[in-house]
Formats: sequence, C-alpha cells, structure tokens
Amino acid sequence: MYLKSTKIYFPNQICRSGYLEIQGEKIKGFCSEVPEGAPVEDWGENLILPGFIDQHIHGWGTGSFNNDKSVHSIQEMKKNLPYEGVTSFLATSGAEPIADLIDGVKNASWVVEHQKEDGATLLGVHLEGPFINKEFKGMQREDCCIDPDMAIMHQFLAAQSHPHVIRLMTLAPELPGAKALIQFCHENQIQMNIGHSAATFDCIRDLKEYGLGGVTHMFSGMRGLHHREPGVAGAALYFDDLNCEFAKQTGMTVRPEVFALTWRLKSKDKIIMTTDCGGIALTKKEKYHYIRKQTFIPNGDELILRNDDGSEEHIDLHDYKAVRSLELSYIKSIRNLIANVHPSVHEIMKITAENPARYIGVDDRKGSLEAGKDADILVVNPNFEIQATYCMGKKYILEE
Amino acid sequence: MYLKSTKIYFPNQICRSGYLEIQGEKIKGFCSEVPEGAPVEDWGENLILPGFIDQHIHGWGTGSFNNDKSVHSIQEMKKNLPYEGVTSFLATSGAEPIADLIDGVKNASWVVEHQKEDGATLLGVHLEGPFINKEFKGMQREDCCIDPDMAIMHQFLAAQSHPHVIRLMTLAPELPGAKALIQFCHENQIQMNIGHSAATFDCIRDLKEYGLGGVTHMFSGMRGLHHREPGVAGAALYFDDLNCEFAKQTGMTVRPEVFALTWRLKSKDKIIMTTDCGGIALTKKEKYHYIRKQTFIPNGDELILRNDDGSEEHIDLHDYKAVRSLELSYIKSIRNLIANVHPSVHEIMKITAENPARYIGVDDRKGSLEAGKDADILVVNPNFEIQATYCMGKKYILEE
Repeated sequence: MYLKSTKIYFPNQICRSGYLEIQGEKIKGFCSEVPEGAPVEDWGENLILPGFIDQHIHGWGTGSFNNDKSVHSIQEMKKNLPYEGVTSFLATSGAEPIADLIDGVKNASWVVEHQKEDGATLLGVHLEGPFINKEFKGMQREDCCIDPDMAIMHQFLAAQSHPHVIRLMTLAPELPGAKALIQFCHENQIQMNIGHSAATFDCIRDLKEYGLGGVTHMFSGMRGLHHREPGVAGAALYFDDLNCEFAKQTGMTVRPEVFALTWRLKSKDKIIMTTDCGGIALTKKEKYHYIRKQTFIPNGDELILRNDDGSEEHIDLHDYKAVRSLELSYIKSIRNLIANVHPSVHEIMKITAENPARYIGVDDRKGSLEAGKDADILVVNPNFEIQATYCMGKKYILEE
Repeated sequence: MYLKSTKIYFPNQICRSGYLEIQGEKIKGFCSEVPEGAPVEDWGENLILPGFIDQHIHGWGTGSFNNDKSVHSIQEMKKNLPYEGVTSFLATSGAEPIADLIDGVKNASWVVEHQKEDGATLLGVHLEGPFINKEFKGMQREDCCIDPDMAIMHQFLAAQSHPHVIRLMTLAPELPGAKALIQFCHENQIQMNIGHSAATFDCIRDLKEYGLGGVTHMFSGMRGLHHREPGVAGAALYFDDLNCEFAKQTGMTVRPEVFALTWRLKSKDKIIMTTDCGGIALTKKEKYHYIRKQTFIPNGDELILRNDDGSEEHIDLHDYKAVRSLELSYIKSIRNLIANVHPSVHEIMKITAENPARYIGVDDRKGSLEAGKDADILVVNPNFEIQATYCMGKKYILEE
C-alpha cells in the first residue's frame, strides 16, 4: 500500500514528494513512482509525518492508568489516542500505593505482549513516583511520596513479564538513597527523569553522570531558576545533555515566552513534548482542578463539572467527543506550540517523535518514517489538523 | 607616540600586530611600521584594548558619588579608576533626597566641563532612582523611592550646566506616571534602564517601545523568572532588544552558571558589564553589608570592618591599596568572568567598552581603538592583569 503526498517528512531536513510504501505493519520505503494499479491513498498536499510518541500520559478519554490500572483501561487509552495523533505511549503512573503500581506494571506487561494491531502501541510504563519529594508534590498523593527503596524497585522489576516494560522513571534525586537507585535503573536501561524535586543545582550536577537524562514537565514540580540557586530548572537549562520534557501547551502552566526561552537554550534536540493528560473523566472521587477552576464529580456514567460559580456541565462518559474535550489533546497542544514558537515541521518531528523515541530507547522501531520502522504515521493538513493516523499500518479516522 | 604590540584589538574580530599611533588625546590610527626615531612604547605580547566604560558605579576607592556628591569626591573616582582599567564612567546615584540628587547633577556637570587630562573621563550621571519601587529596593533608601514625577525630572534636567550630563536613568516602569517619564527622557536622549522594579512581563512588553533600553544589575532588584510570570528577568531574557547590565562578578550575587545562561541567550551584543561599586570606604554611618557579612564602621581617617564573629579589620583611608581591596574592581570582575564563561577577547571588548559606549551614546568618541577616538587604552597581560592604562592619551600605572 502506498501513501501519496507532496510533503513526506523524513529526518535530517528531508521532505519529498512521492509515495511512502507500507507493507503490513512496517514502512517499506519511499518511491517516486508506483507500479500501475498499485493501491494508493492520495493525501494531496497534506503533510505525512511520524506519529506522536507520548512518554508522559496518565490517561486519555475513557482510559486512565492513573484512575484504573486494569487491562481494559489501558486498552481504552490505546483505542482513543490515534485520534489525537499519538501512535505510541508510556502508560504513566503517579505516586501511588506500591501494590497498585505493581498491578499497573503487571497489566501493562500483559498489554505490551497482546496488543497487536489495536490502536496506539503501548511502549511500556513511566513511573512518575513513588520516589518523589512531598515538598514539590503538585497534584500527587503526599502519602505515597516515599524515599528511594531498592527492595521496592526490585518488586517493580519483578512485576514485568519481560524486560523493559518500565522504560522511564521520574524521581527526586535529592532524596536519601537516590544515587544507588539511579545507578541501578541506569544499568537496567530505565531512563531517569528528575521531577517533583527540591534538588539544588549542585545536587543535579553531582548526580547527573550516574544516569539522570532529563526533567519531567519542565518548570512544574521543581525549584525555579533563581540567580543564586538555579535549582532543577536552571540545571536543565544549563547542562546541554539534560532533556526537557514539557507537558501540554495550554499557555497557562508555562507561559509561551518561557517555553520559547527554553527552546532557544536547549534547541530542538533536547525538548520532548508530552501531554501529561490524566484521563480525568474517570476520576474516582470529587476533585478540584486548580487550573481549570472546576470541581470534577464522578456520577456513574457521567461526570459533573461544577464551576466556581456553582454552574454545572454534564459529560456522558460514552460520548468520546464530549470526553476528549475535558483535556487538551496532543495535537491541540502542538497547534498552540506552533502559534507561539513557530517551529519548522522538522523541528516538530524532533520534539514529538524522534527525541522521545531515542530517549526511551525505541528508536530502532519508532520515531521516524524510515524504511523498516513501524508504520506509525500521521497525516495533517497545513493547519496541523489531523486527517488520518496510522498505527502499525492500520488507519484511524475519527468520524465527524 | 606609538604603542607597539603583537596584539592590538580592533572591532569586528580584527587583531593586528604593529603600532597604535596616539596624538595627544586621540588615536591617530594603526601602522605596521614607524619612522626611525619615533617615540615607541613596546608592550611586547601584551594585549592592547579599549579601556573599560563603567555606566553603573556609585563610587570607587576614595571617591563616592553615593556618599559624597562634592566635586572632590568625583575627582577622587576619576583619579582612582584608571588603575582598575576604567577609562570613563557615569557617576551613579541611588534613590536619595531630591536636593542631594540635584547637587550631584550640578557638581557632575562642573566636572564634565573641567576634567581635562585628569584620570578617567566622567561621561555624566546615571540616576539609579529615585523613581524606583520600594518593594524591590535592595540596599536603596526606602524613604527616597518615589513615584515618577515630571516636575522633579525637570529640576534634574535644569541642574545640568549643558545637555546630556544625565545619560542613564534606572526606573521602575510599573509605577504610576512612568510612561510619560519614559517618553520624556527618551526624547531628551536619556537612556532608560528597568531596575528595582516589580514590573510584570506584560508591563515591560507594553512600555518597552516608549524607550526602555535594558535592565539594571540583571536578576537583582527585580522579579525573577517564573514560568507563569516571567517578570523583569524573563522579559530581559526574552526580548532581543533589551540590554542586560551585570554588576561585578563576585560569583555570589549571580551564580556563574546563571550568568552563562544569560550570555547564551542575549549574546555578546546585549550584555554590559559594570561594577555597581559604592566607594564603600566613605560610608557615613554604620552599615551592614549582607553579602560580605561585615559591618562597616566609619571612624575618622579609618574604616573599621567588624565581622560577624566580632573580629575587626582597620582600613587606612589614605592607603589606596588598602581601600581598593574593599570592593571587587572592574578588572577583577572581568577575570572572574573569564574563568567562568571563557569569552574571547573580542567578546570582552564588546561587553566592557563597545556596548556601553553605544548604549549611553558616547560611541562617537569612546569604546574602541578606532582612528579619531579618544586614546582610552588598556594594556593587559595574557592573564588580564593590567600593565598600564591610558586615559585621553595620558598613562597611569599603579606602582607596586
């Protein structure tokens, strides 16, 4: 099968007009002509890009690894995500009871093994905690923020049905015992992010070499840049080798100009876009969302949103189009980014696909449209509105 | 007269081996050969650079515009500064009683007119206040921080014996009446710095075009960079046209890594080095210095420094070499900068001479070794230790 377009984007500034050949789940390669009668989908002047990789997503739509660690919940995420441009992801936990986290790793392991041709690819798990600092807990559960513990880390690893389900962990490196844990995870190919951390600049400088690769949701849950104590944010800006992960670009959490400053300092090679979405529709208990300024009230098959003035909205949990409006999707975040920072298409590909693929170690099969890689493909119009998403060669279009 | 060296630094990356010709107070030009018998000072492999321009210096050694606004006090600054590499400067006030500031402008006017061939050139006055914000007063007098007042501004201008004695003013643009004052000063060729200010990012964005050129002692006396309110620091980093003035590089006020981040963002063209020294030897009343952690106690012809542990040092005010050790000099600040940021010599010339000359409008006669400009020249060895300073062609060497 061939996807035809005047703008097919490959790495290293290459954009070609022609045909992307897909064979089953894989990209076969590029060609300028196709055999007569070959099956062609003609996307005209739309852009053909690698699908987004979201390494920090707790939940989306009707699935939420945060609120429900069942196989079904993960599968709902897989099912929904292609419609937002995401073709693979890490199911992301918070700081939660150890038993729940172990269950999550087990269920994610099962899905990783049985997921064939079923929505977005689950790449594994991102454990955002439990080894994080209460002082910078943000919206995490304080009672579940604990010091690094090697025995617990071994339990997490033992819960994997095969290696490398846990691909990323967020921890606070200033906590006692962090150094040994960082070294252990690094040896086990678990990428380590600094996050929900009160670490000083010097703490990060000293521990970085043992395996700290970047920071979680840059600027949030960390010491900000101060001219006498540059903190986690300052270290992330200063050290060239640290990657900066950004949560969705609502314009509220991080002001666009501050994102732009980070962009100038870190370059397109060290920024990783994520959503940090929560699957907030599945919240189990009443919860106040401090940015939306709404109380989320679960009510059987519906979710009630109560505004500060007492007015209410009701969301039917079976109506995906209503549910997806609860959080800012990956594709909408990228449109905001484009409006604020004016990146090139190649820069967008780096921060949405190439960089996270390399960071979490799946760049042998994901992150670019190169021959032999998985057919995870996004078709967008020039306004970056999704026309179609292909996950492992299978097409997803949300019917309007 | 000719200065010979293998390393004479001109703007735009030009470094030549040969002779710099000086005629009286002016630079005549460069030549590769000189007539036989011509007077030559051979500086060998030492570096020949333009002298430093300090646009933010309250006092130095035995002179202090902060503590004593007399002609004598200003002349002491002129006399001392060449030994630290400074060949011209703005006598800088703080927020002080209006009558004192008017006196200062009058006396500075007199010195500007009568200063011929007498140490460093007084270029005029930098009024750091009184229109600054109490909330970010730092070490300024709170009772003298007032809202912008056009009547007072007119009094300042009237105190000048000729135009352009007041060359720079630091103000807080969020104060009521600031916009009109900024516009008025801009029309009168007074450069405007933001400083001691609680301004938001948006305030600066909105008022910048009316004449705000940069910020005073970057990071100090302002809102720091926060990801939801980038503040003055964020605006200075974000907007390419704002200049960032830095106080002396002690490594304590601004961490070297934070200076380095600013360096990366702003480039060599938008950073201006100053000392912000106070002539602290002349302090009139007991004063605690929160960075040095010492109490300064005036005692006739000596200054007593009392450490927190009660121990004391005594400084003889007639001993310049003792007095100069009280504060970090311009040349020592530059050596710290070199150790931390590793700039090129051409970059150092930009931030110490070319940029401030352009910023305060004296680049027709100061800031580079071009033919026709004043013979303000610095000779340093490769370790940036001063060998000699020339102010308007006259040589100064501190005898050891």
